[in-house]
Amino acid sequence: MATIKDVARIAGVSVATVSRVINGSPKAGKESQTKVKEAMVQLRYQPNASARALAHQDSEMLGLVVSDVSDPFFGNMVKAADQVAIENNKFLLTANGYHCAEREQRIIEQMQRHRCHALVVHAKMLSDEQLGEYFEQIPGMVVINRMVEKYAHRCLALDDHYGAWLSTNHLLSQGHRRIAFLCSNHAISDADDRLNGYRDALADFGIEFDETLVGYGSPDHVGGEQAMTELLNMGTPFSAIICYNDPMAAGALAIAYDNGIRVPEQLSIVGFDDVLIARYVHPRLTTIRYPMVQMVQKAASLAIRLSQGEQTAQGSGIYKPTLIRRHSVSRYLIEP
Amino acid sequence: MATIKDVARIAGVSVATVSRVINGSPKAGKESQTKVKEAMVQLRYQPNASARALAHQDSEMLGLVVSDVSDPFFGNMVKAADQVAIENNKFLLTANGYHCAEREQRIIEQMQRHRCHALVVHAKMLSDEQLGEYFEQIPGMVVINRMVEKYAHRCLALDDHYGAWLSTNHLLSQGHRRIAFLCSNHAISDADDRLNGYRDALADFGIEFDETLVGYGSPDHVGGEQAMTELLNMGTPFSAIICYNDPMAAGALAIAYDNGIRVPEQLSIVGFDDVLIARYVHPRLTTIRYPMVQMVQKAASLAIRLSQGEQTAQGSGIYKPTLIRRHSVSRYLIEP
Repeated sequence: MATIKDVARIAGVSVATVSRVINGSPKAGKESQTKVKEAMVQLRYQPNASARALAHQDSEMLGLVVSDVSDPFFGNMVKAADQVAIENNKFLLTANGYHCAEREQRIIEQMQRHRCHALVVHAKMLSDEQLGEYFEQIPGMVVINRMVEKYAHRCLALDDHYGAWLSTNHLLSQGHRRIAFLCSNHAISDADDRLNGYRDALADFGIEFDETLVGYGSPDHVGGEQAMTELLNMGTPFSAIICYNDPMAAGALAIAYDNGIRVPEQLSIVGFDDVLIARYVHPRLTTIRYPMVQMVQKAASLAIRLSQGEQTAQGSGIYKPTLIRRHSVSRYLIEP
Repeated sequence: MATIKDVARIAGVSVATVSRVINGSPKAGKESQTKVKEAMVQLRYQPNASARALAHQDSEMLGLVVSDVSDPFFGNMVKAADQVAIENNKFLLTANGYHCAEREQRIIEQMQRHRCHALVVHAKMLSDEQLGEYFEQIPGMVVINRMVEKYAHRCLALDDHYGAWLSTNHLLSQGHRRIAFLCSNHAISDADDRLNGYRDALADFGIEFDETLVGYGSPDHVGGEQAMTELLNMGTPFSAIICYNDPMAAGALAIAYDNGIRVPEQLSIVGFDDVLIARYVHPRLTTIRYPMVQMVQKAASLAIRLSQGEQTAQGSGIYKPTLIRRHSVSRYLIEP
């Protein structure tokens, strides 16, 4: 592979001049610039990113920490952040925390070591204190899908409580009274907030919370299948289900079919997030829209600005979800 | 942020000793090692990855080039590669080519600059010659989902022709004769190979190829909806469809429902890839299984071994897909 010395030799300039051209120093004259660039093309010379990062104490990296990129929710997040990276001439570095505190910590620190000065973090397992330390160490760090009070100007979160309240209220207004909830079994704020939104909507209608109507599973298709199966096995009657997210709703739908239960005629189902699958299951899923693409774009822009020393809180705050009505909910009739 | 000098001061050793400990040099004594590590913990010192990469002319990076991580096919690929990275104590660097030759080139070169010596590449837009140059420059580069003859020992590909032949043959053996094909509109070998597999299976049954039965769209849900709508608008009768991939099949299914066409009673549909959605549309999709997780794991292991100077071709070659029978195909009856 060609070295900087080869480039200097071919261009007929000093190594220091080549270095100035690579690093965009104003000291490099126009003529040297042309010569060096031609030599770089001729030799297919690739400046070493590590050396550049070291020289600049900076990197072209935008970092993004997600939970699991194979989950479409996070796949969309990566794509949205990548668009902002490309626009800002940065290279997106992503890593998966896999719902594990130790791994979340490890990848944030790896990104620090790779000089990701702009960093968007989706980490639900670390404590507020642990995140607080990273907020202090990394001025360009922004947290998404979580609110850390002390650093609210660098957090973008969704009002999960309101989202679940909205879907429960929608079912109640359609006449449903026995409404089950398929909840995530991860001990994270999203699960608590959504469950509380459901409870509060029930309370607003004077309906007592019934623990036997809550099933738990991993927040994915398989978890939805398992929680739905267990709920049916309990024998407690219900005419509608709120699901923690759309993949769980898709799993619940599949089990309903396997059990000969018609949706929405006999059972209404509502999802959460509005990921792609919501539009391709049958019937199409009524769900809560999470404006995630918009949020992650704002988070990435905020992280880049903060990393460049700008004092701004643009885009931070709590976002409100909306109800998307499709075909998985019908009015409750005594004898369907 | 703490520097290497601070660590040396607290540990009471020289900067060179700290450097030796960080880089795992055998010259660092046991006592110095303990002192330095304690000082690093105390100061929360993070060795600079760029400096280390420069010193070692290596990086802890495993690179993975995909087309679009928000497509579940690639999301699964990233997860499988990440598992291999974690097992090998490496950090996965992923980037999206977005089905664009220029961008594929750019991200491979970015990965080179970041000293990704182990690199798995899914690039369909670059020519064999362009890929050949990268094969020469990067000894630890492995290509997935494509066969470059000269570097066959560093390629893992799927027999696309056989996969489409298999699904078409399955429909023919169920009595279908008017079989449509929803094809990707990307000019890549996968599309040609799958279309040719379909044509050859028809020819084996003595059925002439009918161009009006082939629809084209982007290889995703929306493309499937569009291609299916156009095919229906043509008015040419057909009793079954082979789809380029599962998302296109999900799109075709949604349009069938919108048009009151019952699947599989009136129309049989077969997908390709067996991604998650195939099991959650209704009816569950009969499809061709792409052993992608297994292939990408083998590709990542091969890339790491090659990058370490090992001479091996383990895992390279052409993989065979299999037919997964679910509920979207029925026998052809004259009057359904």
